[in-house]
Amino acid sequence: MVGTRNPLNLGAVARAMSNFGARNLRVVRPWEAAFREARSAVGARDLLAQAEECPAVAEAIADCSLVVGTTAARNRELHHPIKRLEEGARLIRKRLRAGSVALLFGSEKVGLSNSDLSHCHWLLRIPTRPEHGSMNLGQAVAVCLYELVRNPRSQPKRETQSKAKAGELERITELLFDALQNSGYVKPRTFDVTKEKLRRMVRRMQLGPDDAVVWLGMLRRIAWKLEHSGHSK
Amino acid sequence: MVGTRNPLNLGAVARAMSNFGARNLRVVRPWEAAFREARSAVGARDLLAQAEECPAVAEAIADCSLVVGTTAARNRELHHPIKRLEEGARLIRKRLRAGSVALLFGSEKVGLSNSDLSHCHWLLRIPTRPEHGSMNLGQAVAVCLYELVRNPRSQPKRETQSKAKAGELERITELLFDALQNSGYVKPRTFDVTKEKLRRMVRRMQLGPDDAVVWLGMLRRIAWKLEHSGHSK
Repeated sequence: MVGTRNPLNLGAVARAMSNFGARNLRVVRPWEAAFREARSAVGARDLLAQAEECPAVAEAIADCSLVVGTTAARNRELHHPIKRLEEGARLIRKRLRAGSVALLFGSEKVGLSNSDLSHCHWLLRIPTRPEHGSMNLGQAVAVCLYELVRNPRSQPKRETQSKAKAGELERITELLFDALQNSGYVKPRTFDVTKEKLRRMVRRMQLGPDDAVVWLGMLRRIAWKLEHSGHSK
Repeated sequence: MVGTRNPLNLGAVARAMSNFGARNLRVVRPWEAAFREARSAVGARDLLAQAEECPAVAEAIADCSLVVGTTAARNRELHHPIKRLEEGARLIRKRLRAGSVALLFGSEKVGLSNSDLSHCHWLLRIPTRPEHGSMNLGQAVAVCLYELVRNPRSQPKRETQSKAKAGELERITELLFDALQNSGYVKPRTFDVTKEKLRRMVRRMQLGPDDAVVWLGMLRRIAWKLEHSGHSK
């Protein structure tokens, strides 16, 4: 973190690092108050206490084999290749297997200076809207770290949830039909058609075995009540 | 945003929404100060000014066809399927082509209540470290929205079935609950729990808009009948 001004942001950065398993926080030329008062990071007190204060970027990155800057700028004249976060994160993950990687974030007001940037191999850009590219510092750090740890190969798990048996579904259909008959919903003319529609609809519910039991219980109770309270209008 | 307490967090949420192109901020039961004082979101003043305050979750999500909760909990007993953010975001992107999707975030202190969660179809979990799962609210929102917009080219293109809106599902839940109350299925002691269970169960039905209309008609008729033929057992 270079030139961070707001203690709340430093705290938020520490918390996000802890959430996503990043360990070494180094703070370059922070505003004095920012570093002194940033002690409220929920769950990340230790990480913050172990943060190192460095006089310059060069010291902070000395042991890293890849240095990546971050920028929201589109208009500024930048002399570095810019990679979108997804692509950049892929490269960073690869490098992390061999050594340390530094991610540089500039101050809330002005970002990284040209001098700071000159230490970087390339720059990361979070894919924000062109009309509003500038992110809150703590949120930008959280998004970058998330992209680094998320599983790029994660596939949607095929659902192997078990489903209710056809016999239960048919019983549900019958009970619902009875209740509807006793309520005057079913017209005698459309008796068969309505039953078929109901049957298809109950199948579309994709009930699991537990829900099927609950539905059976509810409908039994409703059908019973309708039967035993009738003849009274 | 449900029960948000900290104005800074609401501001940060609005800023992240603006960064990533989400538009409709709805705030349910915020702490008064949080909503009144959250006016400092850099670049997102308009979005914040247009935020809607809703008395309850049901109103906030009524026009959405998918409602997704967020949770850091691993230990809590949850009655919902939980999907990792990468997988969940894929499903959300698909649904967004056909209608609105609600992303629910709970309060800083306690997250979403069981009652809030009962409105959800499923839950999202950000892949944080097990040892420190709880994220700062503004950072959690930023990470979720980032995952939704990143690399749009990798989107799988598939047909989307349209789904019933949350308002209709809630109406179905209410009618079913009325019918069950009038049938003596609901015990006064378990009133709230039963209602939450019902709400979740109705969401699991994955109703399409046409089926929702049919269910509404059937349940209206059954509830009416139970009401008007009662007092006779």
